[in-house]
Amino acid sequence: MILHLKKNISELQVKQVAEIHEGVMFYDAKRWVVVTSSSIKKPLKETQEFIEEFIETETDIQLAGKKYLTETRSVKWGNIEIGGNSNNTVMMAGPCAVESESQIMESAEFIASMGIKTFRAGAFKPRTSPYTFQGLGMQGLELLDKVRSRFGLSIITEVKNLSHAQQVLDVADIIQIGAKAMYDVSVLELCGASKKPVLIKRGFGTTLQEFVQAAEFVLCKGNPNVILCERGIRTFETKTRFTFDLCGAAYLKHYTNLPVVLDPSHAMGYSYGVPDLAKASMAFGCDGILIEVHPTPSKAKSDASQQLDFPTFTKLMGDLKTIGGAVGKQLV
Amino acid sequence: MILHLKKNISELQVKQVAEIHEGVMFYDAKRWVVVTSSSIKKPLKETQEFIEEFIETETDIQLAGKKYLTETRSVKWGNIEIGGNSNNTVMMAGPCAVESESQIMESAEFIASMGIKTFRAGAFKPRTSPYTFQGLGMQGLELLDKVRSRFGLSIITEVKNLSHAQQVLDVADIIQIGAKAMYDVSVLELCGASKKPVLIKRGFGTTLQEFVQAAEFVLCKGNPNVILCERGIRTFETKTRFTFDLCGAAYLKHYTNLPVVLDPSHAMGYSYGVPDLAKASMAFGCDGILIEVHPTPSKAKSDASQQLDFPTFTKLMGDLKTIGGAVGKQLV
Amino acid sequence: MILHLKKNISELQVKQVAEIHEGVMFYDAKRWVVVTSSSIKKPLKETQEFIEEFIETETDIQLAGKKYLTETRSVKWGNIEIGGNSNNTVMMAGPCAVESESQIMESAEFIASMGIKTFRAGAFKPRTSPYTFQGLGMQGLELLDKVRSRFGLSIITEVKNLSHAQQVLDVADIIQIGAKAMYDVSVLELCGASKKPVLIKRGFGTTLQEFVQAAEFVLCKGNPNVILCERGIRTFETKTRFTFDLCGAAYLKHYTNLPVVLDPSHAMGYSYGVPDLAKASMAFGCDGILIEVHPTPSKAKSDASQQLDFPTFTKLMGDLKTIGGAVGKQLV
Amino acid sequence: MILHLKKNISELQVKQVAEIHEGVMFYDAKRWVVVTSSSIKKPLKETQEFIEEFIETETDIQLAGKKYLTETRSVKWGNIEIGGNSNNTVMMAGPCAVESESQIMESAEFIASMGIKTFRAGAFKPRTSPYTFQGLGMQGLELLDKVRSRFGLSIITEVKNLSHAQQVLDVADIIQIGAKAMYDVSVLELCGASKKPVLIKRGFGTTLQEFVQAAEFVLCKGNPNVILCERGIRTFETKTRFTFDLCGAAYLKHYTNLPVVLDPSHAMGYSYGVPDLAKASMAFGCDGILIEVHPTPSKAKSDASQQLDFPTFTKLMGDLKTIGGAVGKQLV
Repeated sequence: MILHLKKNISELQVKQVAEIHEGVMFYDAKRWVVVTSSSIKKPLKETQEFIEEFIETETDIQLAGKKYLTETRSVKWGNIEIGGNSNNTVMMAGPCAVESESQIMESAEFIASMGIKTFRAGAFKPRTSPYTFQGLGMQGLELLDKVRSRFGLSIITEVKNLSHAQQVLDVADIIQIGAKAMYDVSVLELCGASKKPVLIKRGFGTTLQEFVQAAEFVLCKGNPNVILCERGIRTFETKTRFTFDLCGAAYLKHYTNLPVVLDPSHAMGYSYGVPDLAKASMAFGCDGILIEVHPTPSKAKSDASQQLDFPTFTKLMGDLKTIGGAVGKQLV
Repeated sequence: MILHLKKNISELQVKQVAEIHEGVMFYDAKRWVVVTSSSIKKPLKETQEFIEEFIETETDIQLAGKKYLTETRSVKWGNIEIGGNSNNTVMMAGPCAVESESQIMESAEFIASMGIKTFRAGAFKPRTSPYTFQGLGMQGLELLDKVRSRFGLSIITEVKNLSHAQQVLDVADIIQIGAKAMYDVSVLELCGASKKPVLIKRGFGTTLQEFVQAAEFVLCKGNPNVILCERGIRTFETKTRFTFDLCGAAYLKHYTNLPVVLDPSHAMGYSYGVPDLAKASMAFGCDGILIEVHPTPSKAKSDASQQLDFPTFTKLMGDLKTIGGAVGKQLV
Repeated sequence: MILHLKKNISELQVKQVAEIHEGVMFYDAKRWVVVTSSSIKKPLKETQEFIEEFIETETDIQLAGKKYLTETRSVKWGNIEIGGNSNNTVMMAGPCAVESESQIMESAEFIASMGIKTFRAGAFKPRTSPYTFQGLGMQGLELLDKVRSRFGLSIITEVKNLSHAQQVLDVADIIQIGAKAMYDVSVLELCGASKKPVLIKRGFGTTLQEFVQAAEFVLCKGNPNVILCERGIRTFETKTRFTFDLCGAAYLKHYTNLPVVLDPSHAMGYSYGVPDLAKASMAFGCDGILIEVHPTPSKAKSDASQQLDFPTFTKLMGDLKTIGGAVGKQLV
Repeated sequence: MILHLKKNISELQVKQVAEIHEGVMFYDAKRWVVVTSSSIKKPLKETQEFIEEFIETETDIQLAGKKYLTETRSVKWGNIEIGGNSNNTVMMAGPCAVESESQIMESAEFIASMGIKTFRAGAFKPRTSPYTFQGLGMQGLELLDKVRSRFGLSIITEVKNLSHAQQVLDVADIIQIGAKAMYDVSVLELCGASKKPVLIKRGFGTTLQEFVQAAEFVLCKGNPNVILCERGIRTFETKTRFTFDLCGAAYLKHYTNLPVVLDPSHAMGYSYGVPDLAKASMAFGCDGILIEVHPTPSKAKSDASQQLDFPTFTKLMGDLKTIGGAVGKQLV
């Protein structure tokens, strides 16, 4: 149950309402909001004088649900907007990881030259093995900061865990919470305390219900700028790296009010399939597409098999714009 | 290993070559072909005089592999062609099941009015429970025969098992082997002995390797007209009926020489997601799309939740044509 | 809904009751039974005079459900009984496939020497590829018939599809419906018309609901002798062949009235894990264990990696008996 | 590749060896060890003078592999030992969460009265929704500290993320890294810097390879006291909460040198199946069993459906001891 409190009440009174219902409170720019368990279907009597309106919900997908807000939320950074009244599909592109100054600058220059505004690259890489490249860490973040000032690109980069979450928050324009980190409440809550856009990637073993619940952890701290990203789930099929769950994306589009970004690169795991999947994503009508691009994919320190080279990506951008025209979407 | 035998040798000699290698033999319109286990890498000495050329293969995906034929095979029925040199994407549409004469005629009239040439509907329904509608059986087949003659539509309909496989073969223009029947070697071999197009649906628990192996059972009996259909696999996600495996479809397109049809209706299980998934399928660049359409979906005797109504389907057809234009594909 | 009809009514009247409710009818040795969709919660008025009692059910798991029969059904063959009042766990052992007379006789002699009464081996092998050993077929069945007469062993062997189902029914003491054939209604119904025990293997992509529904197809034809066999499901984990679903077995034991046999050999796929899994199965309290044993596993024509050799199996039998003693179960 | 360095070399020299091979270094009580990527098969020439011996490995499962240590490592706490030369199976039992002083003391008193030495309960609960009970946090940890001093029980409790990891490390005798936290390198490394036993739960979407890799993050920091815990993976089957992967446990037992604990409670999700699965786990031959027990399961604030009540657990303990006797294992 979501409670909208009356304008004139004090923070102390809000706290009382929250405590009585064992709920969570935040200020959403217009009013105080208290969210309780969805098992509570009606406000308790003693709090009714403080409550402007309440919205009953079936599950704990509450602030993210279409029942609460019937339109997709608008999320903005730089000069970009997705969701809301825009018909935009944002392209977020760049290499898997920051590997060196020359690699990242070459990548950024190419991405900027394509008219793309949002650049992706990881400084903290969540790797399976301790014996492989773990990312450049703080040094990588600093290079991304340089990319922004040199090329005017907005930066989306990943948080792995709490140990460097604040540092990523300080530098990134969009904070990406990775597939392996999305159950980390300490990171979700830290992002909730910011107003920066947060892109949450679905864990590869994560149900849609759990995925949207992760967004609730951010939303109920008062940050409405949450984006959901489908990047493939783990199934019995291993000829491809993961299984791209477009049915799940259709569910998210239908039942939630959050913009949905699709990541065919990680789903497929092999560059040969990425362009067709990206074209499918565009025609599907998503709010963004995330593509890994690398100056020399075969030499990449991570995800070598799935990154596109520059000529392939250039061709793909043209195709995506044409498809965008056909389905009433603008690639930004 | 695939062996192409010399033109002038006798069937008896072909048999000897097959037996020596424990292989399978068939005539492919141009020459005799013997296919052995892929573990055999070279023809045995005593057979070399009969062999024109041989193609080594890595796995038992042999006749279906891009290594054997680098272009997608052409499959034809009625005036339709997919694969080959065509840029066609075929629409196969119609209700889940034949329910009654009026329902099937109303459906067929609508489908024909949309300019579609290929009509789908099931007479033998593979249902989970013995206590639900199992399809009209032979009576359903007869109604489909009427549909063809009345509206000039080609008919694709499903075989459940051997008990009615010959009857379906006699009536259908394209034989559909359902997701639950695709391991049935008796049905696959019967279809292999025909020349009619055979559309094999991927089982929901079937790996890509097994899926293409099912096609090999048909191909190695001498029927080259095989179409693969991805219709969703079973994963941990249950908010949608199945998970549409577009990554798998990308694999099939890349590594096999068979046309690929996509079935978003069964993957999604809910009509709300079908149009977006169908649009994605079109932009992906598949050889066909299979959509369930029903005059009154809510009253359908099976798959009620996923069938589109006529207005939604009409809108979708327009969108698909526009997207087809953008990606160089023609919807037929 | 399950309807027990009154003793004195005619078959014609039973048919009327069945038709009115669109149900299935059979005689269960005591009375006529009609089973309708579980969505029907009450008999229609006009049939009430024919009905002795009716049992409402929540899902289409009806005849197999604990709600209908609270005790596990007794299934018998040879001198063996499982379920019912017995505390028996049956050992079904033997090679994957009948490969030759000497291989099968050597296997059978060994199995008989261990005091085991039920011998397994496949004549019709459901293989993934057409280019590998498909079983000896009818010749294999004849060899199994010889095994029975020479060693007094009961035979369990597999049906792949309808093309040889009657032949298997004629020879086998227990008909095994394989994991890839268990959706084949034509085979299920043929087995339903017999009284021989039928062991249904769960498909590797099959939900528990669907699995028990397959049993319903046999039960509602009047054959009460159905055994369920869990043999591993397909999951994202590929270091082992399948994933042994003991949680699912616990569900079957709790909610159904059918004996449950466990098959660790196919689940694991590697002989190193089979003994520990077999011991777990015994302590779990199942009604039977199915183990693949081969005179020379490394030379087996199918499933070479998972078959136990004779010494390992001998040791395992001793362990299973000891564990049986600890949990109040007798290995037969 | 694992390098054992010579006794007399300096830390600086170790660092050089590590840097040259881009490896990780730690002191393992006997000697300095450097672990490199498994793709490196031989030490570089310039380091050979410092190297006593090197062990080539096929994958990045290195320190945890049977190739490196052929026996299961011994892990000890309180008076308990598992692995090594012991034949012990440890019982770790207690409620899902610390809910209140009375609940936790009642639970601990019962567990101690059963002769069990290791008590489990969570203070930081990784919940799916922000609108449900999140655990008592630091207050819960303090209550667990009281449990230890009052009942002499060793405490195993869970870390959710870095925000409270040090606090858990300070209080717990065994640190449990939960299924949702096991990719968190910051937590793994912190545990690696301690010598306390660390029990890592397999994520429900985690492959065996990734699972053991998580252990490598702890081992390569110098903490050898790592225990692996299988607690069910997520599959298409949803009638039970998860699917207990005993095949996977067999793999871990065969290929790794780490003790394996099994958790049937979380796998099953329903108390009705837990005793049979626990008995199976005992006969399987694991190093420990983790069971949730609650004074009044129906009133539990989390995992209400799966916790055993005291009488059921008492009965189970008796059964487990008997089975332990049959398989040569002692329940401690």
